[in-house]
Amino acid sequence: MNTIYVVGIGPGAYEKMTVEAAQVLKSCDVIVGYTVYVDLVKEHFPGKEFLTTPMKREAERCELAFREAEKGRKVAMICSGDAGVYGMSGLMYEIGEQYPDTELRIIGGLTAATSGAAVLGAPLIHDFAVISLSDLLTPWEKIEKRILAAAEADFVICLYNPSSRKRHDYLQKACDLVLRYQKPETVCGYVKNIGREGEEGHVLTLEQLRGTEVDMFTTVWIGNSQTRELRGKMVTPRGYRNV
Amino acid sequence: MNTIYVVGIGPGAYEKMTVEAAQVLKSCDVIVGYTVYVDLVKEHFPGKEFLTTPMKREAERCELAFREAEKGRKVAMICSGDAGVYGMSGLMYEIGEQYPDTELRIIGGLTAATSGAAVLGAPLIHDFAVISLSDLLTPWEKIEKRILAAAEADFVICLYNPSSRKRHDYLQKACDLVLRYQKPETVCGYVKNIGREGEEGHVLTLEQLRGTEVDMFTTVWIGNSQTRELRGKMVTPRGYRNV
Repeated sequence: MNTIYVVGIGPGAYEKMTVEAAQVLKSCDVIVGYTVYVDLVKEHFPGKEFLTTPMKREAERCELAFREAEKGRKVAMICSGDAGVYGMSGLMYEIGEQYPDTELRIIGGLTAATSGAAVLGAPLIHDFAVISLSDLLTPWEKIEKRILAAAEADFVICLYNPSSRKRHDYLQKACDLVLRYQKPETVCGYVKNIGREGEEGHVLTLEQLRGTEVDMFTTVWIGNSQTRELRGKMVTPRGYRNV
Repeated sequence: MNTIYVVGIGPGAYEKMTVEAAQVLKSCDVIVGYTVYVDLVKEHFPGKEFLTTPMKREAERCELAFREAEKGRKVAMICSGDAGVYGMSGLMYEIGEQYPDTELRIIGGLTAATSGAAVLGAPLIHDFAVISLSDLLTPWEKIEKRILAAAEADFVICLYNPSSRKRHDYLQKACDLVLRYQKPETVCGYVKNIGREGEEGHVLTLEQLRGTEVDMFTTVWIGNSQTRELRGKMVTPRGYRNV
């Protein structure tokens, strides 16, 4: 049986990786990944063979990993954040159906919802929903339905992929949907370049967020009815009763 | 300015901690935490002073950390999982209002939603909601509303605190709510003792989950309409369109 390690490297900095992820990458022969993430880790793992494919070539990247493993090499497939949150582990299992002699081991990493939350303060302390605004593989109606459901049920909401060149007004649309149930003063936040050079966290109101343009390296948090700003930080309490 | 590091240690094993978390704990004088978590990390950080309070004494634990920091000592407050997901970072900011000379730095850790997902396969790949079934600080009606909203909007759902001695039928109740919108065959999973001795992952249907008794060391995942079982693993696809 061959094994491929599917490794979440966290936001990017070596220190934000788990000890296990670093150990696994050190022990591998080949590290496969999206070009940008391979460049982030390369210097910390000298002597490895690095294989990359560009964005939107994810299936090809998986095939590459399985073919290397079939040669008997120890392979890691890396993803930013956690491999299981909008990451490659799902597709690896799907494509893995064609490679019954190779098993997968998933090594967790810090996903943006939590690594960015640490920059803003404590936005996620209670129940939360994670929603991607990318409609590349999901119809917008489905995304819209989820935003409305999460806002109505007073979840804290974390938005991945809030913007791209073709979808510059999606965050504004999402805020308009939340505004049907939450107040304009609802405490929100966004973080740009989490755990990388140029990291920037901002705490603001839902109304201000609606008028803010963010880029594709940004993650967004929308508070619930209890979320407050404390000394510039975004903080959600543990519950709805007096503690 | 004094600094307290609020550190998520992940599920428990040293290897599942981030490199940064391990570095911070090594550099501290005092490590404060819930007795059980302190026992999990103690052996890896010799020479530190460890201060603990039992469960339900969280506010006291925070005060303890701030008082140590005011003495000029380097203090870490540890939490299992991520400090920002049902963790201590929120309460630390709230109590921190009384300690204006101490700042907090939050160090992320792997939360059960993602560390347990890695055991089951790839259940969270797409949009998901995280809900705690504990009604200690949240009215059950609010929890119920969130479960229904998440199920109707076809989120993958991750349930924290699915059971306790007093709440042995809460998981069954939650499954009944989800069954109003999702099929009995919906692929689900649960993991006991994530990242610790006795770790056990199980993949089963929603109907089977409804009849399963889990303990308080268990986390539960309920798939969306697209989640499948592939070679014994729980796998959610990346979207709703053909890839």
